[in-house]
Amino acid sequence: MDKILRINMGAAGGPQVKSESVGSYAGLGGRALTSTIIAKEVPPLCHPLGEDNKLVIAPGLLSGSAAAMSGRISVGCKSPLTGGIKESNAGGMASQMLGRLGVAAIVLEGKPKEGMLYKLSISKDKVEIKPDNSLKMLGNYAVAEKMKAAHGDKVSCISIGQAGEMKLTGASIAFTDMEFRPTRHAGRGGVGAVMGSKGVKVIVVDDTGCPVRSPKDPGKFKEANQNWVAGLRKHAVTGQGLPTYGTNVLTNVINEAGAYPTKNFMWGRFDTCSKISGETQAETENARGGEGSATHGCHRGCVIRCSGTFYDKDGHYLTKQPEYETVWAHGGNCGIDDIDAIAMLDRLDDDFGLDTIEMGAAIGVAMEAGLIQFGDAQGAINLVKEVGQGTPLGRVLGSGAGLTGRVFGVERVPVVKNQALPAYDPRGIQGMGVTYATSTQGADHTAGYAVTANVLGVGGKVNPLKAEGQIELSRNLQIATTAIDATGMCLFIAFAILDQPETFQALLDLINAFTGAKMTGDDVTALGKNILKLEREFNHKAGFTKEQDRLPDFFKKEKLPPHNLTFLVKDSELDQVYNW
Amino acid sequence: MDKILRINMGAAGGPQVKSESVGSYAGLGGRALTSTIIAKEVPPLCHPLGEDNKLVIAPGLLSGSAAAMSGRISVGCKSPLTGGIKESNAGGMASQMLGRLGVAAIVLEGKPKEGMLYKLSISKDKVEIKPDNSLKMLGNYAVAEKMKAAHGDKVSCISIGQAGEMKLTGASIAFTDMEFRPTRHAGRGGVGAVMGSKGVKVIVVDDTGCPVRSPKDPGKFKEANQNWVAGLRKHAVTGQGLPTYGTNVLTNVINEAGAYPTKNFMWGRFDTCSKISGETQAETENARGGEGSATHGCHRGCVIRCSGTFYDKDGHYLTKQPEYETVWAHGGNCGIDDIDAIAMLDRLDDDFGLDTIEMGAAIGVAMEAGLIQFGDAQGAINLVKEVGQGTPLGRVLGSGAGLTGRVFGVERVPVVKNQALPAYDPRGIQGMGVTYATSTQGADHTAGYAVTANVLGVGGKVNPLKAEGQIELSRNLQIATTAIDATGMCLFIAFAILDQPETFQALLDLINAFTGAKMTGDDVTALGKNILKLEREFNHKAGFTKEQDRLPDFFKKEKLPPHNLTFLVKDSELDQVYNW
Repeated sequence: MDKILRINMGAAGGPQVKSESVGSYAGLGGRALTSTIIAKEVPPLCHPLGEDNKLVIAPGLLSGSAAAMSGRISVGCKSPLTGGIKESNAGGMASQMLGRLGVAAIVLEGKPKEGMLYKLSISKDKVEIKPDNSLKMLGNYAVAEKMKAAHGDKVSCISIGQAGEMKLTGASIAFTDMEFRPTRHAGRGGVGAVMGSKGVKVIVVDDTGCPVRSPKDPGKFKEANQNWVAGLRKHAVTGQGLPTYGTNVLTNVINEAGAYPTKNFMWGRFDTCSKISGETQAETENARGGEGSATHGCHRGCVIRCSGTFYDKDGHYLTKQPEYETVWAHGGNCGIDDIDAIAMLDRLDDDFGLDTIEMGAAIGVAMEAGLIQFGDAQGAINLVKEVGQGTPLGRVLGSGAGLTGRVFGVERVPVVKNQALPAYDPRGIQGMGVTYATSTQGADHTAGYAVTANVLGVGGKVNPLKAEGQIELSRNLQIATTAIDATGMCLFIAFAILDQPETFQALLDLINAFTGAKMTGDDVTALGKNILKLEREFNHKAGFTKEQDRLPDFFKKEKLPPHNLTFLVKDSELDQVYNW
Repeated sequence: MDKILRINMGAAGGPQVKSESVGSYAGLGGRALTSTIIAKEVPPLCHPLGEDNKLVIAPGLLSGSAAAMSGRISVGCKSPLTGGIKESNAGGMASQMLGRLGVAAIVLEGKPKEGMLYKLSISKDKVEIKPDNSLKMLGNYAVAEKMKAAHGDKVSCISIGQAGEMKLTGASIAFTDMEFRPTRHAGRGGVGAVMGSKGVKVIVVDDTGCPVRSPKDPGKFKEANQNWVAGLRKHAVTGQGLPTYGTNVLTNVINEAGAYPTKNFMWGRFDTCSKISGETQAETENARGGEGSATHGCHRGCVIRCSGTFYDKDGHYLTKQPEYETVWAHGGNCGIDDIDAIAMLDRLDDDFGLDTIEMGAAIGVAMEAGLIQFGDAQGAINLVKEVGQGTPLGRVLGSGAGLTGRVFGVERVPVVKNQALPAYDPRGIQGMGVTYATSTQGADHTAGYAVTANVLGVGGKVNPLKAEGQIELSRNLQIATTAIDATGMCLFIAFAILDQPETFQALLDLINAFTGAKMTGDDVTALGKNILKLEREFNHKAGFTKEQDRLPDFFKKEKLPPHNLTFLVKDSELDQVYNW
């Protein structure tokens, strides 16, 4: 991966493509690369939808290689949702393909003429950007179909739906999966709105004729990869839990822990959660889908295979197996226990190009405001449809939970840095509260997944109901996560490398055999710290202080049943997360 | 003024009134008192619509006395619009009455039961708070009529319209004027939303039986007041310009200066501004209203008398004479040159309880987004009506320009700290840009009115088109203004005291004769500095840094015709405003 493709959308005669050497960015991948480019090139006080913001799409360091799990893709920009730096990553096919094409990053820059929409095509021999207003206001599914018809089914697509075109701060960027469906999303932080502001509707990636990337030391690489896969298969979470039930295996676990945020974070348990649990979901999918319902990977090279397919009552494809966060956001968070309705909401979100977490949280807030009742599944579907239609109410909801709360005068709004909290109540899993509060990304479970030691007993044990130990836990996880996000590896590898030193060593061996480096565990830590520092500096220059590293008031005031606790970690402790 | 009325809206058995001594707050009035109470009693990170925020309503230090111009009232809280401290002041009758009643401040605290609406009555012998859900979703005019019917026309009202009840961040608080009309508003910062969150629809103030407040030294007071009035009458602005044409005398002046923000800050001149100028407005009012159209004061004791009455084409009362800022916000800023339409918008804003500046700016942004065309007067009226109806679009617009910009993906949004810029383009009057950027209040012309030396030649001369001298000018004005806001004096006295040392001395004599203090000019400066420091500290603890003391990007990038300048004051200079 030796080149960066810069697309200047604001060039005088229309968008221009420039392919340049990675230069000083060499050796960086994924989040390390996106965050470094944003920190170096984007003025922290610029308008997120203006010409000075950039959208960076970068495969990981190992993407395009034969390394298992290396197909995650990172998207970076100044976030129109949080106002700070953003890295949002996704699965899908694009990362491996861009890796094979030798593209370290696509950088969308400048601002095109108002009202123009473009398609960017990247293949071995040509990079081309052309206007295509026929794509206007199409959903991601229709875009994918059109691209398949035009380019065949061996390419992959990166696209935005109506939400991104409308520049809504809840808009995602969709990546087609192995079935050419736009189901894998860089969901968080409104990255789709930035792509929309650049006027790029779709990027077609075609790696035809590009071989898998070669490691520096093929022998060692092969051996390391074998150990790596064996380690992942050995661990209970990555070898059994996730492959069997997908991420939704967590519903019963988190509900049991009393930390399942129910009805806009009013309770920690959802009475009827078994109706939407991973177990029930798998059963339903198996019953309806037969063979096709087996779990599979979201990208080439995945050995965990936590993805699945959801069929409607008539056995027709509706959407991918909704993820735990989606099932919670549209389910328990809204008091909805209808798995079919949740799947429909997932489908609509994917099609319009919306972050399911942000949308579920926004609807929860709308329910708290009394627009519709908690539990009203059809009402929720109607609300999401309004987003696709671009009605004023739809635009409000599509702008996320924070804005919805402002418009409807709601006080209980679960956001940090204006980004909605995911599916773990910080009063029931206190370590997650530390991550939500202090992450450079706004409330984000993937930024430092303290559920590991707090609930799952992975990587040690820290009592989830006490303040003790949470700062250190979240800090270490945030550092490690940031480094993993640089490799292109799926975050789920964390379970195995936290518990199995030999699997962590296999990962290091894999990286070293591939790149020729001599990375140690300390180097990984240093990498994570460096990226976090860059991100935090960007946020500081964008006007963030420790006062933004706080949970909303109500988590400190309202006790969450069944444990009847508030968030216990003191502000002064939160301020220690970055003192390493 | 020896007592503070605290109304605990969240008390267990329903709202409770407590009358307490001013205690440590003695000697403070107006903005000095509201900002001190907020800074001392409100947690800076609390939710602005939550139980921990407080709404403080305070007459000025001299309110209730015979001192001319002393009838302004201050409203303070944590602003739901800016997230920082807020002082918004207004004319009307309440200030003089509260002064006579000996009430230094009304403090609304806590949070009532959801869905309950209350009426607070204050008279010589009784302070009473009672539920009155019959007032729900009434406009300010209907509320005033109801109160007049119940209490006679000698009382005054402080109320919110539909916008405040909906807790929209553009909501104002209305104060009835000398004609018992709800036309004087504490407009800025969403103070009406905070009153709405406290569940208080109206405060009826009855000063029956309360004599004018007595000065410590009646002889000196009388003499000082005579000199004071003579000084105000002598100055060209306070003695001629404002009394003849009202505040709208500025339209031609600012347009001539090339700093009249036209069509959402795209141009500095509005071709047809003569159709909505103060001169035209006065002519129209005279032609339609006959005798009744003479200018008059907005409160008892005013000798400048810049208010007027606007009659419709049939000669019926429509609204008070729209102020310059309103005529601009709904007029030039939206490309509208129909004075009748602007008056109708003013009436609707007053009735629904909305900040006219914020509303005009929000509609300008909506026009930029293409919802309606610039110049579409009926379209603008329809949009404001949506706010009163509480439709989703209405709620968006009623939440202000910043939020409207987010919902519709607009980049050119004229706000600082999320508060809309008033009627002076910072590229044509650079000193105003410094005030907008650095004020503790968000973009606010009254916080440091550099138009004086930049355009009017009052208080010296500073070239409006250069950066030189603007920091010092804005700093000195911000300090002086803050002190004036503590006295209860109308800000328009500034013209006379800046130019006429003997009139400034008369003001000092007035204060000293009334209070028995020995205040000097230096003490006034020290008072202003102290309050600003308190306010700035609050904002700092609420998460504000120097990065929020900036104008939006586009003022630094787009040149404003006819002078073709950007905003020229450097960030590093802006950071010196509070280094005194």
